[in-house]
Amino acid sequence: MTPKPTPLGLFISFEGIDGSGKSTQVARLADHLRARGHDVVLTREPGGSEGAEEIRALVLQGDPDRWSAETETLLFTAARRDHLERLITPALAQGKIVICDRFADSTRMYQGLSRGDLRATVDQLHELMIGVEPDLTILIDMDPTEGLKRAKGRQGHEERFEDFGTSLQEAMRAGFLKLSEEFSDRFRVIDGSQSIDQVAQDIAVATDLALEQRR
Amino acid sequence: MTPKPTPLGLFISFEGIDGSGKSTQVARLADHLRARGHDVVLTREPGGSEGAEEIRALVLQGDPDRWSAETETLLFTAARRDHLERLITPALAQGKIVICDRFADSTRMYQGLSRGDLRATVDQLHELMIGVEPDLTILIDMDPTEGLKRAKGRQGHEERFEDFGTSLQEAMRAGFLKLSEEFSDRFRVIDGSQSIDQVAQDIAVATDLALEQRR
Repeated sequence: MTPKPTPLGLFISFEGIDGSGKSTQVARLADHLRARGHDVVLTREPGGSEGAEEIRALVLQGDPDRWSAETETLLFTAARRDHLERLITPALAQGKIVICDRFADSTRMYQGLSRGDLRATVDQLHELMIGVEPDLTILIDMDPTEGLKRAKGRQGHEERFEDFGTSLQEAMRAGFLKLSEEFSDRFRVIDGSQSIDQVAQDIAVATDLALEQRR
Repeated sequence: MTPKPTPLGLFISFEGIDGSGKSTQVARLADHLRARGHDVVLTREPGGSEGAEEIRALVLQGDPDRWSAETETLLFTAARRDHLERLITPALAQGKIVICDRFADSTRMYQGLSRGDLRATVDQLHELMIGVEPDLTILIDMDPTEGLKRAKGRQGHEERFEDFGTSLQEAMRAGFLKLSEEFSDRFRVIDGSQSIDQVAQDIAVATDLALEQRR
């Protein structure tokens, strides 16, 4: 019932608190892989497919309290299912490398921490309706004070997930690090306080290794 | 985690194929109960609360193939969770009688029959995220040929669930009857081929009995 990626492609997710430089590093990794001849698909969650983007809009627009944590989790799972069926799984089946800015680990984090402890429910829903994990998850680890400063400097960001202040960002950093231990087989923690070039190089090394291990 | 209705109110759902007269009979039952001094809330699925109606619109509008059966089931479950939290559970807690035109049994039927056999998934999702069943489910049983004739005579109905033809309606009738055996404690099967007045009377008797049993 749950779609499984074939061994041909590689499914990479990026995680980390806001301002950790995910978008910049996703673009840098895509450049690196394309220069080596790989077919790369860039995507993001929530959203990533036409239907999933509509669900994203439904969740993120309007009063933040319009949905309960449980309903929101169901909507995000619906969006992820659509994204997986319509974009991720077909691309992997064609041997492409899919790079996704946030995936299920973000749901585990945010719904578990900021909206009541729904981690067990999130896991059961994931098991039942998604079933797929990335082959490689890049966690860009960063001091929240620095991350928040960078996030506030950007234009047009959605506030839902970002306007939480430093103490919650501290908790989220800790939560992501804990996930990296729980799923240590696929997580690679990158020190985000380094220069952009050094972070990009560390990520390229981790990705090249993951590609080798798939062959 | 899953909200439970208190014993004060009564949660009644109506099920049946299209054209079986559900809407007419929901209104008749509301009149009967209000005449006896009960506080009655009329609602319907999919939809029934502000958020659930938005999800309904997302699912039912556009290309019928835009969502997979699995994604659609997740969206309907999200809508049901919202409907339950925002309308049904609070009304029952205030001792009101909630009459809902379709509930989870319709999902069990339609997603199990017409969109691939998802019954097991529907049940697991229901158990995990909804957990509530009606106290009384009125199934208006009717010959599909008669039901379809009545449905086509109506204006402005959504075609998604209704434009399936008689053979599928036959299968749905059989499916609802099977559910009535599976959940025989709460299902009451009413012969929809009788006069509207007789059907209304049968439903009133079944409801009055359910109300007595709750006391």
